[in-house]
Amino acid sequence: MRGAVLYGPRDVRFEERETPKVIKPTDAIIRISATCVCGSDLWPYRGIQPVAQPTPMGHEYCGIVEEVGSAVKSVKPGQFVIGSFFASDNTCPICQIGYQSSCQHAEFVGTAQAPVLRVPLADGTLVPTPEAPSQDLIPNLLTLSDVMGTGWFAADAANVKPGSTAAVVGDGAVGLLAVLSAKQMGAERIIVMSRHESRQKLAREFGATDIVTERGDESVERIKQLTNGIGADSVLECVGTQQSMMQAIQSTRRGGYVGYVGVPHGVELNGEQLFFAHVHLHGGPAPVRRYLPELIKLVWDRKINPGKVFDMTLPLDQVAQAYRAMDERRAIKTLLRP
Amino acid sequence: MRGAVLYGPRDVRFEERETPKVIKPTDAIIRISATCVCGSDLWPYRGIQPVAQPTPMGHEYCGIVEEVGSAVKSVKPGQFVIGSFFASDNTCPICQIGYQSSCQHAEFVGTAQAPVLRVPLADGTLVPTPEAPSQDLIPNLLTLSDVMGTGWFAADAANVKPGSTAAVVGDGAVGLLAVLSAKQMGAERIIVMSRHESRQKLAREFGATDIVTERGDESVERIKQLTNGIGADSVLECVGTQQSMMQAIQSTRRGGYVGYVGVPHGVELNGEQLFFAHVHLHGGPAPVRRYLPELIKLVWDRKINPGKVFDMTLPLDQVAQAYRAMDERRAIKTLLRP
Repeated sequence: MRGAVLYGPRDVRFEERETPKVIKPTDAIIRISATCVCGSDLWPYRGIQPVAQPTPMGHEYCGIVEEVGSAVKSVKPGQFVIGSFFASDNTCPICQIGYQSSCQHAEFVGTAQAPVLRVPLADGTLVPTPEAPSQDLIPNLLTLSDVMGTGWFAADAANVKPGSTAAVVGDGAVGLLAVLSAKQMGAERIIVMSRHESRQKLAREFGATDIVTERGDESVERIKQLTNGIGADSVLECVGTQQSMMQAIQSTRRGGYVGYVGVPHGVELNGEQLFFAHVHLHGGPAPVRRYLPELIKLVWDRKINPGKVFDMTLPLDQVAQAYRAMDERRAIKTLLRP
Repeated sequence: MRGAVLYGPRDVRFEERETPKVIKPTDAIIRISATCVCGSDLWPYRGIQPVAQPTPMGHEYCGIVEEVGSAVKSVKPGQFVIGSFFASDNTCPICQIGYQSSCQHAEFVGTAQAPVLRVPLADGTLVPTPEAPSQDLIPNLLTLSDVMGTGWFAADAANVKPGSTAAVVGDGAVGLLAVLSAKQMGAERIIVMSRHESRQKLAREFGATDIVTERGDESVERIKQLTNGIGADSVLECVGTQQSMMQAIQSTRRGGYVGYVGVPHGVELNGEQLFFAHVHLHGGPAPVRRYLPELIKLVWDRKINPGKVFDMTLPLDQVAQAYRAMDERRAIKTLLRP
């Protein structure tokens, strides 16, 4: 089969890779229905996170089970499934607490930009849909593999409750779905920081009530103005830079909550500043597996449309084009069809 | 009157200071029954936090109201009161949420090592006891002004619940009272890091079930061993150094909670490390005022004895001796009687 391989900065190739097969009895092999490019794929694509060797790419996936190992019990060939970007056994003490992305046996699923995928720990990782989904549901279901689950975790970690005031730092696909998540969790007011008209539009569609176009300290001032001078109850950090983290912390009211899901790159937090900011801070790789049953139901019942973040769809063999469009911010997120 | 003034490293003097009087209509003047030296007083005493000019000291207090300003309604002369080290109006939105130490009108109460004290925002800051306390209750009540409230906040911020496993970093007075707090909140297992026999003894008396004497990475390993390899549900950081913060974060299980109350000095947290540690982090200056009614009741009903952390009592005029004893770790905490 052919799949995506990153060779170095801005060098993604679609080339021959070994077709995955069952290696361990707990594996499943999936025929991918749709995959996509993640904002976090852009870190190595841009050379900010170096790659030591040609690296297969992709960690968002949904599709049909083709084969399972002898120990797999909860999914079977022919089922349509979605899984997290971290495989997890879903039985260890950390999984039981709901932090499956830190499972004691977690394995990153990193070869999904391909027609066929091996998923380890299939029983713990994959969740089947009630039946085969209609085509129009597939983009929505695909988002549950990472981007929507990550936005949801941002809102959950930031303790969004009915009536909360939430602010979202970042208008990428995660930020936009963090808006949708905050709305779904009952936030009364949702402020999003965005300078891009098309993204602002989608943010409003997902539930944003206010748009802040200022940057840096000015954006913090603006959020304070919008929140009675005290800052937002919940701030959802969806970028991962020093500036975005500081914006998030400073925009939160004392005693409020910062949920951060942008993978930090070069971020250092000053202890004293954090101490006097008096915020709750929680984040990390989203435990997507925890949320899958609930989010599948919301998509299945057509309560949410997270797939709207895909504003470009390409055949998988044009994966290099997909990266380029996102790198140049011509696309929010690109869906790939094998 | 005479009170404590810090001139520079290890130079505390007991000297003439102006006797406080009502300045604003919201002030109260207190005749101090007992005050004490705080671990945080040792930062400037040791020169780690420089003092620009001779500085009156002391922020822990309880005593009898002598006079109140014309606007004060909830306390009156003759009442025995306890207040937080941060004066607060207890009505602003931040106070209403329970973060009185970040009150929009917060004022640090920093001149308490003296016989008489001016407390601003008296209505919001001071809580009277049901009646005049017996002498033996005074050390217990004094701790509620800061050290016990701070230990309690550490346990609360670290989400200690019935059945939790808690670990406490630091065996100073705050750390020891963090143990007592975790016990009171129902922790089933309480691990304390301590290398001092007398402190270990008091920790056990307060409810510690396990003592870890290792340092640095070894202490983290030891805590992992004691917690099924995963780390503690709740870690209470009561020191404020880079090493103690890292110990706390690394000793916490994924998805667990770090409550940090040691004022950070020179602490820098790496964003990526924190992200993958997957912990909840919350701390800051303890909102002691929030806890005062509940803690006064526990002391009044003789359910807790936090005053046991005072293993030395001196007349106020020997305040320099009190600092020296704590600096040299000959005393856990010194109570001062005017």
